[in-house]
Amino acid sequence: MSDKQKKQNWREYVRRIDPYVPGEQPKERNIVKLNTNENPYPPSKRVEAVLRGLDPASLRLYPDPDASVLISAIAKHSGVDEDEVFAGVGSDDVLAMAFMTFFNSREPLLFPDISYSFYEVWADLFQVPFEKVPLDEAFRIRTSDYKRANGGIIFPNPNAPTGILLSIREIREILDANRDSVVIVDEAYIDFGGESAVPLIREYDNLLVVQTFSKSRSGAGLRIGYAVGSRELIRHMRDVKFSYNSYTLNPLQIMGGAAMIEDEEHFRKCRDRIIATRERSAVRLKEMGFSVLPSAANFLFASHPSLGGEELFRFLKEHGIYVRHWNKARIENYLRITIGTEEEMEQLFRVLALMIKE
Amino acid sequence: MSDKQKKQNWREYVRRIDPYVPGEQPKERNIVKLNTNENPYPPSKRVEAVLRGLDPASLRLYPDPDASVLISAIAKHSGVDEDEVFAGVGSDDVLAMAFMTFFNSREPLLFPDISYSFYEVWADLFQVPFEKVPLDEAFRIRTSDYKRANGGIIFPNPNAPTGILLSIREIREILDANRDSVVIVDEAYIDFGGESAVPLIREYDNLLVVQTFSKSRSGAGLRIGYAVGSRELIRHMRDVKFSYNSYTLNPLQIMGGAAMIEDEEHFRKCRDRIIATRERSAVRLKEMGFSVLPSAANFLFASHPSLGGEELFRFLKEHGIYVRHWNKARIENYLRITIGTEEEMEQLFRVLALMIKE
Repeated sequence: MSDKQKKQNWREYVRRIDPYVPGEQPKERNIVKLNTNENPYPPSKRVEAVLRGLDPASLRLYPDPDASVLISAIAKHSGVDEDEVFAGVGSDDVLAMAFMTFFNSREPLLFPDISYSFYEVWADLFQVPFEKVPLDEAFRIRTSDYKRANGGIIFPNPNAPTGILLSIREIREILDANRDSVVIVDEAYIDFGGESAVPLIREYDNLLVVQTFSKSRSGAGLRIGYAVGSRELIRHMRDVKFSYNSYTLNPLQIMGGAAMIEDEEHFRKCRDRIIATRERSAVRLKEMGFSVLPSAANFLFASHPSLGGEELFRFLKEHGIYVRHWNKARIENYLRITIGTEEEMEQLFRVLALMIKE
Repeated sequence: MSDKQKKQNWREYVRRIDPYVPGEQPKERNIVKLNTNENPYPPSKRVEAVLRGLDPASLRLYPDPDASVLISAIAKHSGVDEDEVFAGVGSDDVLAMAFMTFFNSREPLLFPDISYSFYEVWADLFQVPFEKVPLDEAFRIRTSDYKRANGGIIFPNPNAPTGILLSIREIREILDANRDSVVIVDEAYIDFGGESAVPLIREYDNLLVVQTFSKSRSGAGLRIGYAVGSRELIRHMRDVKFSYNSYTLNPLQIMGGAAMIEDEEHFRKCRDRIIATRERSAVRLKEMGFSVLPSAANFLFASHPSLGGEELFRFLKEHGIYVRHWNKARIENYLRITIGTEEEMEQLFRVLALMIKE
């Protein structure tokens, strides 16, 4: 019947996207997993107490739609008010909501050509026009490139997968030139060596700073991310969130997340170990002939003068070591290596030595 | 500087939405909560075992992006294959993803005028044209109203907040007239007395059936919903999901959800009690002069000939009993009353009796 009417078929208006491909989460236990920037150390013991203490009967009720306990802990940690904080299911959820909320201009959204590849996917998903701004020869963001008409700006700081940090002075330069745009600083890795832009939110009502529990808080499995910004920005994000899903966070996330961010001592201990391992690992890689970008993150971005990125990636994988590699212009010879435990890094160096000797 | 350039300001292109307002989640413990259709009974004991058994150290790793353990349990329960199942953070997340994926036509999306009010909010959020199709005088969906050009169809079955059920024959009628549209049957309440449309997915590749763990599985706090449909529909939804957030579900949701749906015995016991309480409650309300719609859900939709909806709502709230009321045309004199425990319903009747005697 409907065929005769020549109606449009639903297939003609499906939203078709090339999805983001996350690093593999292999189910084998016997590997060295340095491919998704997870923390090699477990989260705070306080999370265990939350898990054991959570009343299963309480799960029959909807959670607090405002996630107040978590928001309050994040606000305290960040030195801001509760209505300057937005929380979501990992920073990806927070960033997706921010794209939906703020990036609806016809002017292009600007972000670096070498950066978190999800930015382009969200832009496609929400039909946001965008332009990728090339990093300079040394893989650095040139602040002068962000002084032109745009519908928004987003970049990670430190950048991923390069690990290179912008100073607060440089971020101010971008902000000062873009008072009329929403500028998102994606600080997923800031705790590993950078200075956060959070204190600038009172000065720039168009600045949104996004952080995550997945890296420095060892909570990738919990799925918690957040944004800090002016009351006005946060109110708009909340309106979009409450138009999407009233309850995005469950009690384990709300209570567990609060416990996690309150344990400053555990956080510092893990972070300091990771930074120390990163610095030692950079030296070791250089000794093996690698060129290593200066990293302020929990990973290193490195290339070898005589071994291709793909080749290195495959060899490591065959030997049970997972790192990240992209078949993309400019970075096809680089590996992004998450900083693991000292022991895991030793395994990496042993396998690399095999290859370099060959 | 930027003021002189007369650039557009970000405020001009913020996505502005009137968010959905969920039923209150009051923090007081001393109330009778019959306002958000939660299950009055706790979830399966197996969820407790998952909570206690979950290794907190594992939370440092990202969860399985495919949520395979959960998907597999849902597929088994539903009698379908794993690639015919999509899971998300409550059925709201699943429905929002479905709107984004399928409802991009210029023809209007059709849904009942009295229905889940989130449909209109998602349509606004994603800029989907829509038309609300009036229910008939008896608050029933007239299948003949859905035989015209459209960009998609969505309705709850049983409908909310009326509780009225469509038969499988009626659903087939809608499906047969709409082979070219994606038709979503939102079965949040189907377990309380309806026949599911899931077995029809092999016959209609344009049918998506959405269910939730929040009602009949006592898992509102866990945040799990799912969709069952043809491989093709599910593949498109997965592409959109992986373009939004790679990891939406955490291990408690994945493992806890699987445990929950596998405990068929606990499910039946709670469901049967709720149905029995609903039937007794309908009789009691009618004895008090209420007119009560025939409900196949875990709530009753009722009005009183001489007492206004707003008036009833306020009186009950003052006496610590929370029900749901909307100040909306056609239903402003109705209350939606979630079925609680026998004891909670007795408290409701005691308070109503006070008012009716006055």
